[in-house]
Amino acid sequence: MEKKLLIAASIILNLRFTIHSLYNNFSIWSPTWTNRAAGEAEAAAYVSCSGHGRAYLDGIGVLDGHKPPCECNNCYTGKDCSILLQDCPVDADSGDPLFLEPFWIGKAEESAVVESGWHRMSYQFEELGSFDSAELERIIKKLHNVVGNAVTDDRFIIFGTGATQLIAASVHALSLTNSSSSSSPSRLVSSVPYYNMYQQQAEFFRSAHLKFEGDAHVWKQRNDNITQVIEIVTSPNNPDGKAKRAVLDGPNVKTIHDYAYYWPYFTPITHQVDEDLSLFSLSKTTGHAGSRFGWALVKDKAVYERMKTYITLSSMGVSRDTQLRVLQLLKVVIDDGGDEIFNFGYGTLKKRWEIVNKILSMSTRFSLETKKPEYCNYFKRVRDFTPSYAWVKCERLEDINCYEIFKAAKITGRNGQEFGTEERFVRLSLIKSQNDFDQLSNMLKKLVSQEHVGADSI
Amino acid sequence: MEKKLLIAASIILNLRFTIHSLYNNFSIWSPTWTNRAAGEAEAAAYVSCSGHGRAYLDGIGVLDGHKPPCECNNCYTGKDCSILLQDCPVDADSGDPLFLEPFWIGKAEESAVVESGWHRMSYQFEELGSFDSAELERIIKKLHNVVGNAVTDDRFIIFGTGATQLIAASVHALSLTNSSSSSSPSRLVSSVPYYNMYQQQAEFFRSAHLKFEGDAHVWKQRNDNITQVIEIVTSPNNPDGKAKRAVLDGPNVKTIHDYAYYWPYFTPITHQVDEDLSLFSLSKTTGHAGSRFGWALVKDKAVYERMKTYITLSSMGVSRDTQLRVLQLLKVVIDDGGDEIFNFGYGTLKKRWEIVNKILSMSTRFSLETKKPEYCNYFKRVRDFTPSYAWVKCERLEDINCYEIFKAAKITGRNGQEFGTEERFVRLSLIKSQNDFDQLSNMLKKLVSQEHVGADSI
Repeated sequence: MEKKLLIAASIILNLRFTIHSLYNNFSIWSPTWTNRAAGEAEAAAYVSCSGHGRAYLDGIGVLDGHKPPCECNNCYTGKDCSILLQDCPVDADSGDPLFLEPFWIGKAEESAVVESGWHRMSYQFEELGSFDSAELERIIKKLHNVVGNAVTDDRFIIFGTGATQLIAASVHALSLTNSSSSSSPSRLVSSVPYYNMYQQQAEFFRSAHLKFEGDAHVWKQRNDNITQVIEIVTSPNNPDGKAKRAVLDGPNVKTIHDYAYYWPYFTPITHQVDEDLSLFSLSKTTGHAGSRFGWALVKDKAVYERMKTYITLSSMGVSRDTQLRVLQLLKVVIDDGGDEIFNFGYGTLKKRWEIVNKILSMSTRFSLETKKPEYCNYFKRVRDFTPSYAWVKCERLEDINCYEIFKAAKITGRNGQEFGTEERFVRLSLIKSQNDFDQLSNMLKKLVSQEHVGADSI
Repeated sequence: MEKKLLIAASIILNLRFTIHSLYNNFSIWSPTWTNRAAGEAEAAAYVSCSGHGRAYLDGIGVLDGHKPPCECNNCYTGKDCSILLQDCPVDADSGDPLFLEPFWIGKAEESAVVESGWHRMSYQFEELGSFDSAELERIIKKLHNVVGNAVTDDRFIIFGTGATQLIAASVHALSLTNSSSSSSPSRLVSSVPYYNMYQQQAEFFRSAHLKFEGDAHVWKQRNDNITQVIEIVTSPNNPDGKAKRAVLDGPNVKTIHDYAYYWPYFTPITHQVDEDLSLFSLSKTTGHAGSRFGWALVKDKAVYERMKTYITLSSMGVSRDTQLRVLQLLKVVIDDGGDEIFNFGYGTLKKRWEIVNKILSMSTRFSLETKKPEYCNYFKRVRDFTPSYAWVKCERLEDINCYEIFKAAKITGRNGQEFGTEERFVRLSLIKSQNDFDQLSNMLKKLVSQEHVGADSI
């Protein structure tokens, strides 16, 4: 009897395992054709780079069958990025939004995307002639609705290969409304300090319809109310993080609003923007600068059509691979109404700003533009001033070139001159990786402490 | 004794299953964080669309939790694309390279890519300042070496968001070598028939440095050997598939070679091209038009640097998501030296051309430009003339507008006028899906058969 029971029990147990393993092997949740790719992605993720670097599937040497190598953060080296280079120059130049990387590593399962070899091979989505994913358009509208930072009703949405492409597309589209019969090209202006991409594009592409004219305030004096003008308003502003308003108005003025930084990480959400032409960038929304994705909200159909023509003739739309990935990333963001990512990102920048403020408060040589805490409709509470960049001024008369002063102290920022203003200013990026920020704060401490050494020696 | 044995056996069996299932759950080859994404991709792949459509991960309704819907091929409808619309107009307009889709479905496991949420968030690859993957550059050189269609030694490679962006970048870069002091802009020419994108870009972007001048042969008469000229040579040519040579030369002439179609599917590989500036497109290499990826091989460093500036200012490089995928796709292509994909693609086009030739051989109303079979260095044998498009001429005096003749017969091609030549010509795309081609050949048969009805009735 006892013997029969034991055997019965073991048979049941065996059956359980048999069914379990059959299920694992044959249910669609046990990958078949995705297995190799999944294994490779997981293997790359398991490569340890000591928390000071990252191994990527397309790292150097993978074609030779080597496992993806560690790509070390600035100032770290060695096979596993475990060696910290002493007295290494800090890079605080670019707006590389890696401060959000830890969030995405924490969302590994939710954010992963598997792309089949036959995914969207066509030029067009089902809706004949469209280069843009309709579902992606929908989730972008949802995102704006949960954040409350932009009106999306009765707006056309157009995608770009980064906001970069959309700046060029919108400026070009608006310059064309200038009757080509008119001999005089549209003037492009922005109030200083401004993001230098506007100027660089206009001067390099050299459209016969457009001329970069510099500071909007200067133009305001000369405004003849006839010459067509395009003003770009960046709010919050790059480099100084301040809310910015259009300087010009009138029947001859068209305005582009660059809202790349109008997200709860960087600035209080005070209202839903409702402009004729607004630009947004994935880089500053989720931190995926490498994906090259941005979007524009456009009120006027004619302008939208001209922007579409621009995007079509310059790239035939945005990579469908990227559109698939962005859809998944934004799903993760809005899943909890943005709660997790915006709190994570704001929390990170808040800590960094507290450190930078503390260090520079000890200085009389360098001043930092800041703003009082403000109420944010998204967080439903007062929040600190935590823009992407520290906009620093060198106060000493002899410190004419602030960039060079910092460069000498082994901190590479971006020269104020590149933003159409004085060399007395330098922009320091605070949105890079934690390693980058830690190096920056250490070098800043050193630089500021020298003031007091100087003071003591007097 | 017997009882002990049975229990021992069952324990061993249980252990086996326990270990097996533990292995499945914890070894890196049993995905963990990639599991959800893999399951979703496999589920989308399992959606049956009756072989007349495809369901994609980002299809309409997925945000509402619906499973990806079937997106039906032209002339098919119904939830599972099983309904063929009778007497439905054929679309033979675009160069959508879906003839290669069955190859990639057959390579599901080899070509799948899993992208993590933190993959390449930065603007740059490890090599500071680079927007382009070094491994991708390497495999592109390998590809050219195995196919033998281009010299890659001592060449700079630059990526673009489709060859589309590279056409604009190369034309702009070459127009800038024209000293901006010179009052006269560079002239852009191409011998007719030419791909109309060249003209559309030049006329829409309206660079102060460039003017589209039309047919290279016409310009040759007017060539003053002083005015700077840029000639684009498309070989094999779009639309007519013929090998093309530069018409102009001289110290004032710069040449761009568009080799988008110089692959063994379309044309014999007769030599390794070795030009100053050559363009290639992933769309016509692997069939992934939607990925928007192309590359240029550039001899001159100054030209390369100006093209890089163009790509930087217009999009800050190509999506890193796309670069990861393209690396995997090209791995599959060169794994067997291109044997499988090029034979598959050439075989498909060969069959299609045999059908089209047979149908049009019955016609006196329509003539088709063809070429004798030629030896291909890649296949190491003589191959037929199988370009991407049928370039058809309407021979009857009264058939002035060939596009309209075909349109009336429910076949949408592309008007010869769009290629800078007569309306007597129409371009029919032969590289779309098998469904598209079958519909085209049926409608063509109908159209041609009407000639004989006419003849009989005389």
